[in-house]
Amino acid sequence: MRPVYLDNNATTRPDPDAVAAMLPYLAEHFGNPSSAHAFGAASREGMRKAREQVAALIGARAGDEIVFTSGGTEGDNTAIHAGLAANPGRNEIVVSAVEHPAILTLVKRLESEGRIKAHVVPVLPCGCLDRERYRAALSERVALVSIMWANNETGIVFPVEALAEEAKAVGAVFHTDAVQAAGRAPIALAGGAIDLLSLSAHKLHGPKGIGALYVRRGVKLTPLIAGGKQERARRAGTENVPGIVGFGKAAEIAARRMRGDAARMRSLRDRLESGILGRVRDAAALGAAAERQPNTSAIVFAEAEAEAVATLLAREAIAVSTGAACSAGSAAPSHVLAAMKIAMAEKFGAVRFSLSRDTDDDDVDRVLAVLPDIVAGLRPAAPAPRRREVAYA
Amino acid sequence: MRPVYLDNNATTRPDPDAVAAMLPYLAEHFGNPSSAHAFGAASREGMRKAREQVAALIGARAGDEIVFTSGGTEGDNTAIHAGLAANPGRNEIVVSAVEHPAILTLVKRLESEGRIKAHVVPVLPCGCLDRERYRAALSERVALVSIMWANNETGIVFPVEALAEEAKAVGAVFHTDAVQAAGRAPIALAGGAIDLLSLSAHKLHGPKGIGALYVRRGVKLTPLIAGGKQERARRAGTENVPGIVGFGKAAEIAARRMRGDAARMRSLRDRLESGILGRVRDAAALGAAAERQPNTSAIVFAEAEAEAVATLLAREAIAVSTGAACSAGSAAPSHVLAAMKIAMAEKFGAVRFSLSRDTDDDDVDRVLAVLPDIVAGLRPAAPAPRRREVAYA
Repeated sequence: MRPVYLDNNATTRPDPDAVAAMLPYLAEHFGNPSSAHAFGAASREGMRKAREQVAALIGARAGDEIVFTSGGTEGDNTAIHAGLAANPGRNEIVVSAVEHPAILTLVKRLESEGRIKAHVVPVLPCGCLDRERYRAALSERVALVSIMWANNETGIVFPVEALAEEAKAVGAVFHTDAVQAAGRAPIALAGGAIDLLSLSAHKLHGPKGIGALYVRRGVKLTPLIAGGKQERARRAGTENVPGIVGFGKAAEIAARRMRGDAARMRSLRDRLESGILGRVRDAAALGAAAERQPNTSAIVFAEAEAEAVATLLAREAIAVSTGAACSAGSAAPSHVLAAMKIAMAEKFGAVRFSLSRDTDDDDVDRVLAVLPDIVAGLRPAAPAPRRREVAYA
Repeated sequence: MRPVYLDNNATTRPDPDAVAAMLPYLAEHFGNPSSAHAFGAASREGMRKAREQVAALIGARAGDEIVFTSGGTEGDNTAIHAGLAANPGRNEIVVSAVEHPAILTLVKRLESEGRIKAHVVPVLPCGCLDRERYRAALSERVALVSIMWANNETGIVFPVEALAEEAKAVGAVFHTDAVQAAGRAPIALAGGAIDLLSLSAHKLHGPKGIGALYVRRGVKLTPLIAGGKQERARRAGTENVPGIVGFGKAAEIAARRMRGDAARMRSLRDRLESGILGRVRDAAALGAAAERQPNTSAIVFAEAEAEAVATLLAREAIAVSTGAACSAGSAAPSHVLAAMKIAMAEKFGAVRFSLSRDTDDDDVDRVLAVLPDIVAGLRPAAPAPRRREVAYA
């Protein structure tokens, strides 16, 4: 049975053209980009082109605003440390309650060490940010604000450009984790108020182990990883040239295909979601009233544990997840669902279906064919006839 | 003209078998290893095997002592922060003067922030560590000692196992940067005193962008990159599965071939070095009296700038370097040569020839054929006959 992959918020299949672009840099072009000789020059040229491709995807002004990292988590961590270093007189950080663990874990650690005060802004049951509480948290004590572009568990989109304007008004550095947004929604940073933005290649059909941090010109970046002067002394260590080249190619493809892919994903997602809600009683799509990424649908089934639904879907060769891959296997309820304060979601969890440009109608049909019975089988049955009654029937 | 690559301390050519091992993980096995479904399981299995392969290369007791990182610099940085966190009552760090910038840059930054006191132990003109000064620096105030296994610029090997015993005697955590040693010299960590050891795949014919930190069982590692619970909560972020698998394969190949490769490299290196010293007057091999890696020869030519020698070799399609690739392009003299206090090396720099198992006799012959004329051409000529004398000759 052909597997159905609907876990694209966890990771996406690398585009074969991105992989093909990497191969020469795993073979003949293996030089260290810091080397002065021809082997180094070939690697530098691959990186130069990739930097432009990534800059173009997010509408940066120039390639030198792109600092390559090992992925989204490193970018997020770097942004937090750098925001604090850039504002030495301030020690408060503002984040949302539904940020990725790459933000929340570090912020909580810094707070427990007494190094910062954190404002964790709640979300409303719709999944939207509580804008009043956000504004109340902003002050001239705030060094850094970090609010994600789109949530990984629900797909809900935050109005980061407007939030960045408000943060700038009090002189804070504004960072956004755009790992789930880049390649799925247009991003145009030039001229905006966003200072720092994290990207991850493997969420947009690039390879794992490579990402980037956008650093607006004029923003000073203290390296999280210190050492050699790579990346204009903003990130030390020999560059992952094949990964960078693959990321660049994936970014170029995403930029080119984005509009068509997004419309197609949205149409498939909507058919999947309305199909499920039409076939399964007592189910609800989280954040459906909010602005959402076109590829994500997180669905709660009353009286059916999301974890069990996902396990039974996996037996049908359908890959989905509950919560984020980063916390898979953990028994704790998702902090995102907890923050939304929807009792049913907190109790049963949510099944996350996340599509990609590889998703097709057959994938949707496969889910719709098996899901109703799976959920029904998990729910407490209507009271069965008692044995005695059967015996005397 | 076939290029001659003698810059293997900067980076090595990935082994085709290591690249081949990566490819399935860039295509069908693209799952996120944290995912519960079959796509995740395939990635986890690839990582499990690679972890055992890397553990075997360095004689670790178990795979769970290996934490995958983005490379040697991240490993070095993590070790420093973790050593401080593991010894909260201590604030001194001991390093050698010839450590890689991945160590020295961070140590200097922490010192300038007033967070630590650094002891930078000098080396003797032979390139060996000053053992008396090392012992004098050790005390119960020392949280961490970090001494490299082998130097990247000269190949000089430090007696890290004995140094680790001395560090343990005062209760310090001992870290070694083994980026240049692993795959070139046998390493057997089980039962020894080394707590932390950094590795980089691309120095041993694996891919760029992946490395590992060995963390001896019982040593607590505070993550440098915080977030999800990957790598047993010791390094957050979606794992670079293809890179990890390629690293594992490269480690397995290196372990299998090491003995033969080392003997062959040593023989070629010795022929190259004695050939140069026999053909070029007023030249010296740095650290030749010390224990050295089998693949490295750093040579100083009196009255001929190393930078110019390397540039002219590059025109002959021979790739070498001066100092480390990490500081290439910088006009400052190498801190390693400066630490050795050899006046001629400080003035003219050193040309580093670094071999690999790919190096053959033809490569050596090519260098020996062109180098004497290159050096001679750079040196001040014997006073040329003056024009008048020529005219009247």
